[in-house]
Amino acid sequence: MYNLLKGKKGIIFGALNEHSIAWKTAKRAHDEGAEFVLTNAPAAMKMGDLGVLAEKTNSQIIPADATSIEDLENLVEKSMEILGGKIDFVLHSIGMSVNVRKGKPYTDPNYDFTAKGWDVSAVSFHKTMNVLYRKKAMNEWGSIIALSYMAAQRVFPDYNDMADNKAYLESVARSFGYFFGRDYKVRVNTISQSPTPTTAGTGVKGFDGFLAYADKMAPLGNATAADCAEYTLAMFSDLTKKVTLQNLFHDGGFSNMGVSDAVMEKFE
Amino acid sequence: MYNLLKGKKGIIFGALNEHSIAWKTAKRAHDEGAEFVLTNAPAAMKMGDLGVLAEKTNSQIIPADATSIEDLENLVEKSMEILGGKIDFVLHSIGMSVNVRKGKPYTDPNYDFTAKGWDVSAVSFHKTMNVLYRKKAMNEWGSIIALSYMAAQRVFPDYNDMADNKAYLESVARSFGYFFGRDYKVRVNTISQSPTPTTAGTGVKGFDGFLAYADKMAPLGNATAADCAEYTLAMFSDLTKKVTLQNLFHDGGFSNMGVSDAVMEKFE
Amino acid sequence: MYNLLKGKKGIIFGALNEHSIAWKTAKRAHDEGAEFVLTNAPAAMKMGDLGVLAEKTNSQIIPADATSIEDLENLVEKSMEILGGKIDFVLHSIGMSVNVRKGKPYTDPNYDFTAKGWDVSAVSFHKTMNVLYRKKAMNEWGSIIALSYMAAQRVFPDYNDMADNKAYLESVARSFGYFFGRDYKVRVNTISQSPTPTTAGTGVKGFDGFLAYADKMAPLGNATAADCAEYTLAMFSDLTKKVTLQNLFHDGGFSNMGVSDAVMEKFE
Amino acid sequence: MYNLLKGKKGIIFGALNEHSIAWKTAKRAHDEGAEFVLTNAPAAMKMGDLGVLAEKTNSQIIPADATSIEDLENLVEKSMEILGGKIDFVLHSIGMSVNVRKGKPYTDPNYDFTAKGWDVSAVSFHKTMNVLYRKKAMNEWGSIIALSYMAAQRVFPDYNDMADNKAYLESVARSFGYFFGRDYKVRVNTISQSPTPTTAGTGVKGFDGFLAYADKMAPLGNATAADCAEYTLAMFSDLTKKVTLQNLFHDGGFSNMGVSDAVMEKFE
Repeated sequence: MYNLLKGKKGIIFGALNEHSIAWKTAKRAHDEGAEFVLTNAPAAMKMGDLGVLAEKTNSQIIPADATSIEDLENLVEKSMEILGGKIDFVLHSIGMSVNVRKGKPYTDPNYDFTAKGWDVSAVSFHKTMNVLYRKKAMNEWGSIIALSYMAAQRVFPDYNDMADNKAYLESVARSFGYFFGRDYKVRVNTISQSPTPTTAGTGVKGFDGFLAYADKMAPLGNATAADCAEYTLAMFSDLTKKVTLQNLFHDGGFSNMGVSDAVMEKFE
Repeated sequence: MYNLLKGKKGIIFGALNEHSIAWKTAKRAHDEGAEFVLTNAPAAMKMGDLGVLAEKTNSQIIPADATSIEDLENLVEKSMEILGGKIDFVLHSIGMSVNVRKGKPYTDPNYDFTAKGWDVSAVSFHKTMNVLYRKKAMNEWGSIIALSYMAAQRVFPDYNDMADNKAYLESVARSFGYFFGRDYKVRVNTISQSPTPTTAGTGVKGFDGFLAYADKMAPLGNATAADCAEYTLAMFSDLTKKVTLQNLFHDGGFSNMGVSDAVMEKFE
Repeated sequence: MYNLLKGKKGIIFGALNEHSIAWKTAKRAHDEGAEFVLTNAPAAMKMGDLGVLAEKTNSQIIPADATSIEDLENLVEKSMEILGGKIDFVLHSIGMSVNVRKGKPYTDPNYDFTAKGWDVSAVSFHKTMNVLYRKKAMNEWGSIIALSYMAAQRVFPDYNDMADNKAYLESVARSFGYFFGRDYKVRVNTISQSPTPTTAGTGVKGFDGFLAYADKMAPLGNATAADCAEYTLAMFSDLTKKVTLQNLFHDGGFSNMGVSDAVMEKFE
Repeated sequence: MYNLLKGKKGIIFGALNEHSIAWKTAKRAHDEGAEFVLTNAPAAMKMGDLGVLAEKTNSQIIPADATSIEDLENLVEKSMEILGGKIDFVLHSIGMSVNVRKGKPYTDPNYDFTAKGWDVSAVSFHKTMNVLYRKKAMNEWGSIIALSYMAAQRVFPDYNDMADNKAYLESVARSFGYFFGRDYKVRVNTISQSPTPTTAGTGVKGFDGFLAYADKMAPLGNATAADCAEYTLAMFSDLTKKVTLQNLFHDGGFSNMGVSDAVMEKFE
């Protein structure tokens, strides 16, 4: 409770339930003095409890399919109306692989599922920024964050086509971040978070074993959803104005480990 | 002329004309004793001179749209018939952005064009490996290469959505390379080549200025298409059997430069 | 002014004068409620105005040569006495190349100068952590930061042997960070800062031209010393507890640029 | 046997016995038509069988302490005399940590040992290039290679201060590689090799368990010393003329793995 985001206005995508990183970020952003609009896809809203979060954070909800430019235009316009001005921060926490859900192997997917997952998980971030950019909806020194995962750089076999989607997402952050920085002094970054037992995360095969492995590898253990919320606040705040085009590992050190003593014990 | 690829069988995608990296690679692979099938999309074949190359290298041509699983299945089956056995090397040299061609800005593309470019430039590599993997068409210690560009890691504003496509392509190489390595001892890598004045390359806005910049930055100057053919041979040969999942910079050193004296001269 | 570091205790190395990143960090840390000890080498203290900073921030000064284990032991012990407990944050902002000062070319240095610069710029960070670790002087979830520069990854010809020293420094952060994380839940990171016109920075040949180049390349422009102080506060705060072993680029986006439009203008 | 290095002249550092990567590289380079001088430190020569290798490859031996500029000058001058001209390739395969040998922990080393290991393992590469550069001893398009290890990028706790030395070594390759490329069209790279059961490798604590772990992680398994010799030939050959300033992972894919199925089995 530092008043870190006092007076800042935002849009938060992808809060499903209290396990979600976006949920925890919204709660903490509220604590820190921010006002924001919550959004999620109509289908996701049926599964989750977004109304509870809206009430707790005194926020309004604008449903939007993040693959629809029309929905995104409505979202951005309405958000500026509701919040009374331009946007200071955006959190994109959206990802879904139909191939994973349907149990298709990476080596032989359904390519329509591949295209759908790519659109939802990665192109949606481009579309969101497209609308924000065209509508000049971001304040100077605003901050746009998307959540990513290290499968964008290294192989995690069960992560399937989400690995490729995250690589595309991170590239979009850099590519669009250039134009947003050059033209509007807005920063764009991705946070590459530890595996996290959210509703989305636990859908991946063998997730529990993997969580244990990552926790033993990382010198500080896995970063939790709550930890990620704190870090995201730092990235929204004025403390980090000159950080842009980066993929920021928030993972207890996992990403720079070759092997830990705790993992090696299993091989001796 | 070392007989480096003697007895090796391959498939080479994407030779358009004598400026193409794939063209030069095919010629050199022929010199080095390889036999291979040439392929390109029917539309691309109309523009180019693939027949000339086929004659020079004593090769057959099998047209294939690399976004079509059916065409790829036909290509792989016929190639094994023609060559009399499994495949040792594959070169994927395919890339095209409809947004670039149509002059759409990165920040506001036509998303159908975006999807088409992604399918042609990146998913085609996944589809090719899918077919090769399912048909067990690769020999042990075979080598699969796709051509990439450093826009996958860093911003080159005029490269538009090809940057994101190349990031996806490189991720596919890692993701699929794991399964190909584990199951068939096949290696999969991307070569991140200097900007090259091929027919595809020169379509990018401001290409000449950019070529000069890159050449001044790289301590050895830009790598040419002919240089790239040599390097690709090395990656197909038995000299590099244990290199896999890598993105290999072949760029005269550009990728690890912060600034060169020659570039700094313009700022002093 | 968020009370971000309220109750936190620290040690800040390397404040020379008001242009120093360490100076600005100390001032801001004081604003944010931290208490700390200031330290610098006896020789550096003669050149600078550390007394002024101590007065402004209500801090004590303990001179220490950071290449001397004895001095560092004295520093850490005295700091804990003065501050009344263990340490929460440490800033290492020390670097010096004798070869640069004496105008020796990178390709033919004086190797005694090379060894001296390495000891001062890089090994000093290891020695500092050695003493903190052995004396169990850090609180859980403490944060240790060293300042670095992108020459550790890419070539900047005039940066001379400081490039290699920074590569060593960043490696020390990872290597020691593992043990500090595993055993004491302390994080260790480096911040890779834009070229900054501090007293140290401006000693590098051609610094002005280089500053202009970097500023034109980075979509947000160069990060200033004041910006870096803000970012360092974020890294000391409880917002970033699970970030460790990282080299954090704080550079307006420079590190992920291939080329900007502003730089390309000079080549067209 | 391709005559890949026909007519090329080289200097090979660090062949101790038949397990050494340098030993295997020398044998294969001889097969491929190269002529070269073998060198090692006088102390290392007493332990090894360099005479046997010299006989097999029809080479001469010039002892040299690679930390001594005087010895290196003698080596380079004599080599050019013996080989009848300038040098085309150099292999630096030298590394040693006194702290590892003496069982000192990373967190509390003997700093004289640290300095000695740094000088032998990393600065020796700078000194070698310094002499080659000053004496204009390299032919155009020559190739200089040093062997490295991934501990330069990621934490392997038992690798101790060799991690930091390898980081410095790789930085030297980039820094010096710029000048060698710009001025003499010579390329400089490091090969980051799998853990290898050479005499040096097996001295690291827990090496067997670690070898098994790395082998299970890498989709193609660990690269052997013999594999590394093949790859080094490719890097000395004319096939790779435009590759420079790179750190080349030669590790069966280990470096880009997050986790493999085989490793995950231990956690399920």
